Amino acid sequence: MELTLIPREELERARALGELGLLADMCRANALVAVKRAGSGHLGSSFSAMDVVVHLFYAELNTAELGFEHPDRDVYFSSKGHDVPGLYAVLHALGVLPPERLLKLRRLGGLDGHPDVGIPGIEANSGSLGMGISKGRGIAWAKRHLGRGGRVVVLTGDGELQEGQNFEGLQAAAAHALGNLWVIVDRNELQSDKPTDEILALGDLETKLRAFGWHVASCDGHDHAALARVFAEFRSGGDAPKVLLANTIKGKGVSFMEHPRALAEGSGTYRWHAGAPDDDAFGRAYDELVERIRVRMPDLRLEPVRDAEADQIYSLEGEPESGAAVRPKVTDEYVAEAYGEALLELAERHPELVVLDADLASDCRIRPFELAHPDRFHESGIAEQDMVSAAAGMARHGLLPVVNSFAAFLASRANEQIYNQASEQTKVVYALHYAGLIPAGPGKSHQSIRDVSLLGALPNMVVVQPGNSAETRALLRWAVEEAAGNVALRLAIGPSPRRIDVPETEVAPGRGTTLHEGTDAVLFAYGPVMLHEALTAAESLPGRLQVIDMPWLNRIDVHWLSELVEPFGELFVVEDHSPVGALGDTLRRALDGRAVTVFGVEGWPACGAPLEALRYHGLDGSSLADRIALALRARATS
Amino acid sequence: MELTLIPREELERARALGELGLLADMCRANALVAVKRAGSGHLGSSFSAMDVVVHLFYAELNTAELGFEHPDRDVYFSSKGHDVPGLYAVLHALGVLPPERLLKLRRLGGLDGHPDVGIPGIEANSGSLGMGISKGRGIAWAKRHLGRGGRVVVLTGDGELQEGQNFEGLQAAAAHALGNLWVIVDRNELQSDKPTDEILALGDLETKLRAFGWHVASCDGHDHAALARVFAEFRSGGDAPKVLLANTIKGKGVSFMEHPRALAEGSGTYRWHAGAPDDDAFGRAYDELVERIRVRMPDLRLEPVRDAEADQIYSLEGEPESGAAVRPKVTDEYVAEAYGEALLELAERHPELVVLDADLASDCRIRPFELAHPDRFHESGIAEQDMVSAAAGMARHGLLPVVNSFAAFLASRANEQIYNQASEQTKVVYALHYAGLIPAGPGKSHQSIRDVSLLGALPNMVVVQPGNSAETRALLRWAVEEAAGNVALRLAIGPSPRRIDVPETEVAPGRGTTLHEGTDAVLFAYGPVMLHEALTAAESLPGRLQVIDMPWLNRIDVHWLSELVEPFGELFVVEDHSPVGALGDTLRRALDGRAVTVFGVEGWPACGAPLEALRYHGLDGSSLADRIALALRARATS
Repeated sequence: MELTLIPREELERARALGELGLLADMCRANALVAVKRAGSGHLGSSFSAMDVVVHLFYAELNTAELGFEHPDRDVYFSSKGHDVPGLYAVLHALGVLPPERLLKLRRLGGLDGHPDVGIPGIEANSGSLGMGISKGRGIAWAKRHLGRGGRVVVLTGDGELQEGQNFEGLQAAAAHALGNLWVIVDRNELQSDKPTDEILALGDLETKLRAFGWHVASCDGHDHAALARVFAEFRSGGDAPKVLLANTIKGKGVSFMEHPRALAEGSGTYRWHAGAPDDDAFGRAYDELVERIRVRMPDLRLEPVRDAEADQIYSLEGEPESGAAVRPKVTDEYVAEAYGEALLELAERHPELVVLDADLASDCRIRPFELAHPDRFHESGIAEQDMVSAAAGMARHGLLPVVNSFAAFLASRANEQIYNQASEQTKVVYALHYAGLIPAGPGKSHQSIRDVSLLGALPNMVVVQPGNSAETRALLRWAVEEAAGNVALRLAIGPSPRRIDVPETEVAPGRGTTLHEGTDAVLFAYGPVMLHEALTAAESLPGRLQVIDMPWLNRIDVHWLSELVEPFGELFVVEDHSPVGALGDTLRRALDGRAVTVFGVEGWPACGAPLEALRYHGLDGSSLADRIALALRARATS
Repeated sequence: MELTLIPREELERARALGELGLLADMCRANALVAVKRAGSGHLGSSFSAMDVVVHLFYAELNTAELGFEHPDRDVYFSSKGHDVPGLYAVLHALGVLPPERLLKLRRLGGLDGHPDVGIPGIEANSGSLGMGISKGRGIAWAKRHLGRGGRVVVLTGDGELQEGQNFEGLQAAAAHALGNLWVIVDRNELQSDKPTDEILALGDLETKLRAFGWHVASCDGHDHAALARVFAEFRSGGDAPKVLLANTIKGKGVSFMEHPRALAEGSGTYRWHAGAPDDDAFGRAYDELVERIRVRMPDLRLEPVRDAEADQIYSLEGEPESGAAVRPKVTDEYVAEAYGEALLELAERHPELVVLDADLASDCRIRPFELAHPDRFHESGIAEQDMVSAAAGMARHGLLPVVNSFAAFLASRANEQIYNQASEQTKVVYALHYAGLIPAGPGKSHQSIRDVSLLGALPNMVVVQPGNSAETRALLRWAVEEAAGNVALRLAIGPSPRRIDVPETEVAPGRGTTLHEGTDAVLFAYGPVMLHEALTAAESLPGRLQVIDMPWLNRIDVHWLSELVEPFGELFVVEDHSPVGALGDTLRRALDGRAVTVFGVEGWPACGAPLEALRYHGLDGSSLADRIALALRARATS
């Protein structure tokens, strides 16, 4: 479909009119286009925070004037980070980001799906919640210590305040009397797709924040006059750090995305938190914004978005593309869905099974469980550490907790709590959703390429990743019914790029399954994403590669493995994980003295469309085939 | 010296008198003996919490009556955990622990230095702070879900409340209306060795806790009538979880250990937080307690402690012992001291260097830095996540933060914050104190055997461990002045078992140093503890083992390594870390295709005296020599 952007000159014209609300709507329209083009992104909170962000940059902070490198500049960043499409639109309006880059949201070499300091105007990496106040207080302290000017302004979500680290940051900022630190809470009363009060009520936020020693104000976060009054009050000083509860509307500016209406229309679920609108919804939203802008600027000029890359995005998601490697269509298989269904089945036979969530129930496909067994579904809010320790307590008293979150958060932020639980020798199943490199659009806060290394050294933690839906069901059943200790179930979140055909057999711990026969080398892989790439590589090296689905990432049946690899000269592993600490290392330990070549995610995971990120790391089937062929030739001639 | 214990029969006699204060003093005396015998342990908070614990078990909870396995029992545990000598004394008084076991505090097969559910009467593993409320709310929820009776009572420290996870637990417990959950804050106003108000003020705790939706009470935590009144009020109900701020005195019961006096006598530092008193202080404390007990029980009978093991403890700390392996004396070298001194030197040339602490300044040997540069010393309180994110903010704004905590806490609890900081491509030095297996007395919450695996997969994190003081200074200087990215400096906390003689050369990243020549095999090791064991093994296999000090744990100069190992048939690594994810795996990656035998800490780290724990894991020099000789023989005959 045809997209248009509001060019910077038009935003400058609006600036001259002095209407911040108008500028905010223009930035909303541009953020909407960027998200539509990217195919994903967070509109709801980009829109709820937009008036605050526009007000800060256009009316309050010295940053645009001094530039983003000046030591005395005011520093603004968002702790939640998923509202960054809105910030990008403002940075475009300020001339910090060119339009071409705004249109490369979530693409390789473009703009990361969550903030990254490599991008002009971005002051802090965020995306995993609850770190911003601590980081902001570090900057505020550094400014004071170095005698530099400038305030530090941190935007947080309201749901985000469930993370305990916020309270560490609050207490330390007050103790260090950081009057140059301002926090603004984007109080839209929603978190992901449900009201905060339904997930885990925050209670009387004003009283809480005052009890932590902060100067507290509140106002309508879309009322620029009110914002100006509060900021003037904050400027007039005192040593206490300052917090504004900015009462906002999620989806503000587009009638059907505004949360009171959207919640009503969605039967209590808010659908505009993440993801791009379809063409119809996009058109209606865009038209509504442009019409309102044209009330004040009837001659608004829109610039058509034209470049060849636009279509390519979709082809990268799996459509056939013009190039060496023709890609099959992405399937409609989601292993996480199979996981959610299997949980429901197991619940019937296992009354001790309870499911824990940290506000990712939809993404983790446990909403059906919540609806079927509300009494056995336990919501912790965005508080992974608390969720894990609560599960530890439940496990000691007769329950089998199945704990859900994204792998990047659960294995890392709750790592010590998992260690503590494991040390009690109880059994908990950890479902590590969104494991691996793909989808690569959200960027490094969400991509999980260290989870196996983070859990693999625990004595009683078996880490597995299924390759298809059937294997997901089998491994979950094994985890619940047979495993003696903890199991971490690594799960891809996106659609399987192909249905991986794994012969159905008994679950055999430590053993993999041959998916493709070959003579020259063995290639081990796991999970639907990497198995697809491994099979693609094998198909382009006919007869040469034996592809093994190896779901056991830190347990090996050494006898099986030794027999399997004995006839082969070369062993390869491909994994959507750092080459440190996952299956490659496990195989080397088991096969002590045989060379194993590991193709993993080297360096920081790239942000981009799936195939862009895979190619960047040399992990797509075509690159893999090249790398393997090269290695085989090198060995043959050495 | 001659020790005596108050036998259980005498405690039963006191119980009949109905005086809980008397029972508490008797348990204090027994806890004091256990700690004296162990050579370490936490008296200050064992004593501050003692009246509460005695009151709970003797006057409030049904646990002693129903037994510790009964599903309807009341559940009590301490979240801070280091007060467990006091709890052990109460469990001895109740007949749950026999006297022989009480006298095996911090010994192999005895009582762990922090609570472990493997011990009768222990309901939860703790020792790393801030998890207890979450765990307690999990148990309370499980009890309600399963229709079981019994309350859950969690004791926390007050300094402990600085950990953000507490607030996650508080908000979730209130949201889930867990009226059967009680929290008691042992409000002694001190944390480790300084007043809470000096480290990081907690502010108005009552208001804070009320703002989180809890029913709040406070009373004198040594006044049993007052405790009874509050617990009666709690029992009378309501859905809100309940919290008691029990105002206590750290060191209560021994005049010179009570904190008002002890702080005055210690010039503001409290010295009875951890560690056993010397003979004189022990005698005075014990006499004072016994004299007060004898006012009420003039005929108190004391039972002499007699068994052969008592002296052995001291020999295990390094004195010559009768056995196969004669141990050299422990030295007075502490690598952490060298670290603290080097920090001071580097601070002179590097005004950008700042030091961050999370209430372990004495243990981390950064108190001298704090005194010399109070403006460059930054206290975060017990809040490792906040400390790391604050450091991230400082690093983005021109400072070089050196972040300190124990390895078990820093690498694990703040793992995601470290990932986030690293992703901003700034530089921070992480000092991982108390790394490894030894000292093994505090138990698995404090022993760090996963830290290399937790940080090793970060693209820009070099993990090193120096073997002696000179190497500590050199590596810290390299980290501050030369390293391009983050450095994690793994440091032993105890005295070096011998001075490791490392030839002083330029710091050469990825290269180790030969400490001992041999012909048959190479043995890699790092850190003073394991290098000592490696050298001991080499000395008992004359001429056979080449011992390499390899301080680079995840970076290898492959050329150097290949040349080094080329003449040797066998390669061994010994490490005070899990065999997963540390130097062994790094060497296998670098030497792809050569066998490397790794002797690491298999399973959960054992609690005990140093040599007990090393022997348990087969990592002392003598066991190592046997294991290596066996491997060499096996290879020779295969």
